[in-house]
Amino acid sequence: MNKDYDNYVARMRKIADVEHSAAVLSWDKEVNHPKKGSEIRAQQVATLSGIAHELLTDEQFGILLDKLQQNSKNLNAVQAKNVEVSGKRYQKIKKLSKAFVERKSRTTSSTYDAWIKARAQKDYSLYREALQQMIEVKREEAGLLGYEAHPYDALLDDYEPGFTSAQLDQLFADVRKQLVEFAAEIRQKSQVEDSFLYKFYPRQKQWDFGIDILKNMGYDFEAGQQDISTHPFTTSFGPTDVRVTTRIDEHNFGSMTWSCIHEGGHALYEQGFKPEAYGLPIAKAISLGIHESQSRLWENNVGRSLPYWKAHYAKLQEIFPANLKGIDLVQFYKGINKIEPSLIRTESDEIHYHFHVLIRYELEKALLEGSLEVEDLEQEWNKRYKSYLGLDVPDANQGILQDIHWAFGLIGYFPTYSLGSFYAAQFFEQAKKDIPGLLEQIESGNNAELLNWLRDNIHVYGKFYTANDLCEKITGETLNFQYFMDYAKAKYRDIYNV
Amino acid sequence: MNKDYDNYVARMRKIADVEHSAAVLSWDKEVNHPKKGSEIRAQQVATLSGIAHELLTDEQFGILLDKLQQNSKNLNAVQAKNVEVSGKRYQKIKKLSKAFVERKSRTTSSTYDAWIKARAQKDYSLYREALQQMIEVKREEAGLLGYEAHPYDALLDDYEPGFTSAQLDQLFADVRKQLVEFAAEIRQKSQVEDSFLYKFYPRQKQWDFGIDILKNMGYDFEAGQQDISTHPFTTSFGPTDVRVTTRIDEHNFGSMTWSCIHEGGHALYEQGFKPEAYGLPIAKAISLGIHESQSRLWENNVGRSLPYWKAHYAKLQEIFPANLKGIDLVQFYKGINKIEPSLIRTESDEIHYHFHVLIRYELEKALLEGSLEVEDLEQEWNKRYKSYLGLDVPDANQGILQDIHWAFGLIGYFPTYSLGSFYAAQFFEQAKKDIPGLLEQIESGNNAELLNWLRDNIHVYGKFYTANDLCEKITGETLNFQYFMDYAKAKYRDIYNV
Repeated sequence: MNKDYDNYVARMRKIADVEHSAAVLSWDKEVNHPKKGSEIRAQQVATLSGIAHELLTDEQFGILLDKLQQNSKNLNAVQAKNVEVSGKRYQKIKKLSKAFVERKSRTTSSTYDAWIKARAQKDYSLYREALQQMIEVKREEAGLLGYEAHPYDALLDDYEPGFTSAQLDQLFADVRKQLVEFAAEIRQKSQVEDSFLYKFYPRQKQWDFGIDILKNMGYDFEAGQQDISTHPFTTSFGPTDVRVTTRIDEHNFGSMTWSCIHEGGHALYEQGFKPEAYGLPIAKAISLGIHESQSRLWENNVGRSLPYWKAHYAKLQEIFPANLKGIDLVQFYKGINKIEPSLIRTESDEIHYHFHVLIRYELEKALLEGSLEVEDLEQEWNKRYKSYLGLDVPDANQGILQDIHWAFGLIGYFPTYSLGSFYAAQFFEQAKKDIPGLLEQIESGNNAELLNWLRDNIHVYGKFYTANDLCEKITGETLNFQYFMDYAKAKYRDIYNV
Repeated sequence: MNKDYDNYVARMRKIADVEHSAAVLSWDKEVNHPKKGSEIRAQQVATLSGIAHELLTDEQFGILLDKLQQNSKNLNAVQAKNVEVSGKRYQKIKKLSKAFVERKSRTTSSTYDAWIKARAQKDYSLYREALQQMIEVKREEAGLLGYEAHPYDALLDDYEPGFTSAQLDQLFADVRKQLVEFAAEIRQKSQVEDSFLYKFYPRQKQWDFGIDILKNMGYDFEAGQQDISTHPFTTSFGPTDVRVTTRIDEHNFGSMTWSCIHEGGHALYEQGFKPEAYGLPIAKAISLGIHESQSRLWENNVGRSLPYWKAHYAKLQEIFPANLKGIDLVQFYKGINKIEPSLIRTESDEIHYHFHVLIRYELEKALLEGSLEVEDLEQEWNKRYKSYLGLDVPDANQGILQDIHWAFGLIGYFPTYSLGSFYAAQFFEQAKKDIPGLLEQIESGNNAELLNWLRDNIHVYGKFYTANDLCEKITGETLNFQYFMDYAKAKYRDIYNV
């Protein structure tokens, strides 16, 4: 048919093969870990990444992409979109010279080392200089990539293509105004009881329960498996093999349970791509924010909801009778939704979580535009934790050194965590409208129609739409913070008797 | 220092990275197996293999190898050997045109498919035509590669470099003369009792015992791990990460135990290569025969010996008291060394095993030289099983269709299985001379000095010597069947009271 397009597909599949191979090696490193093998494994992953990069940036491939784009009338809509997305990515990569990429890689490596050292000493000053260099590299990168309104936009585009800092400013202004106030209101109320979550929950029983959770969500165990790792994650080796990992803390029921549901949500997205489009943009995630919307929707809107536990709580009580004796469904529901500000982002409840992200966003934007110096960063960090969360930061490890992202040069990444929750609320609201009796289905343990809705409205499209366009297509408007705010208010006013 | 050599090393490491990555993907496919992912996984492995092949056959790499070989006076002995081995491999690969390699790959694929179909119907005639084409391809390959005495030599060189069919003829003439007669002699004697091996041996206890076996051999669990797979195997991702797999049959104690020791022997070889020489010939196995010598030495010369079980039998009786009650050490030792002809090679005892290999060798050599037609192959197969093992072949699955090797084009491969046992006997005899009190050490559960001996005499050299040269260096002579024959006679005359 179209020889050029066939060649394009073959190249994309080859790149995907190499990238997914690197993912297999990384997964194995996290799940299995012969200690002495880690050094050579890192080298092997780097070699594969290098080969993928060579294949991606090859001049001949650029010429092919140009040619296809110029003759896009010969392509159908999906083909044209694939080529357009690949062409944009090619052009973007080409804006960064080899010398710059190598310098960035060296800076990442030294910033990461400095972060490790600073963590060991709980001393931000050991990290400051390296971070300063990283910020300079990222400023330079933004300049090379180009932007219209703000350098932040250039970096954000890596994680949330098409989204702008102007949109983020609006969203986080709402967070600052409405959510901060609402959280403060809740913190006035008497606290819910959740000590039953910290009794002894034996490993094997938790593991089996986790497998049941995933099956019930619709995760396909013939196209993946769950393993144990230190930090839970999802990784794809192609839509027919999407792996999840979890962790088990025998003295914290929540540690596995909601990470299991969270990763399951990510995995359902990856399992939902068309296998026949393997390697093409149409079978890849739109953005980190949309990816996170899938995990958050399952984790919070479903997995921390009363209807969900109406379906599963009786069984849970059977599995752990001693721990949950005398705890009725509503008590359980309240306990698993306890709201309490904390210093560590990853341990946060679903309300305060967004203040953590807000703080990162404010700081990294100011750093990029030069209105804040790395010198003053820790002080600004601590000031904001006091102001937004009412907390004093006792040491840098519980403060500015807690996240690895900046050390890896991931600036513009944090907002996608919040976007995930906000999209999730908006999508779930729409799903309730589109699926008659959705909550009753969930109450009866049936999530099939919800999954179908996600498949049909989101998964199946891959990168065919931008996040903004997809959100508008599904819900009639672009991302709107009110959906999250309404969800949060309804849920937590009920739980905390506001 | 020597820029060319550095470039050579970098290229070899890159190739090794890609090849070992493919090994990780294949390992994962066998150990974990999300069913739906197998098709794309096969494609990913093929892509990596293709990339490794491109890197290996790149013209620029050939020019570099030539240059290094012409200026080999600038290299030390190890460097010169690395370059020599790589140069030979390059020249060899270049003898096969891309068109031929693709045709061979297609033939392999269709022969494998035919083998699968024939197995399902237990009907050799469904396989015959495809095998005929495979034999023709292998004849052509031998011609392209070139040989002096016999086309078999050209193919054997892939698996046992430097070894010749003339040497094999001599060895198998000895097998035919001495071993056939000796086996017949033993079959006259009253059979040993081994029913205690087929009692119920619980999975977890076997698994734990297997781990202990590996630890006791000196397998480094910080540089590898054991997993379960259908067929046990060893695979290396580099000397600092060498994985083994095993299987457990709760009604057959031997199924796991000696496969564990066997794979452990392979793994010790791979763990014994110098990590700093990763990717270079000096850190790779000499040949399949030498690799198999390491597994067989541990499995049979050590793992089925009386001294070994003197060390471990008391513990085994503690683990499985009911099964081994009233079975004393000597009874156990006799039972695990039962000699009985069988139709299936992989289930054979250590004497009859070599008749299976002998039959493959006779047949494939005759096929290659054209003195036997594929048409008559099954008949010839069955005739030989009657003559050498005294067995009638009831159907093709228990006969000519039992092995996958020919379907994969692995002709010249089988003899390396026997070479392994023969080398093992010769090496172990030498180790006994070199290590005072070796058997007493083994009796006391201490295998450290044996492992050191293998490391110092074999592992550390990688491909520095050919198998012939290494054998002569260690034992003062090239491979000599008498060592195996003497070992077999001494052991089995004792067990069977000949």
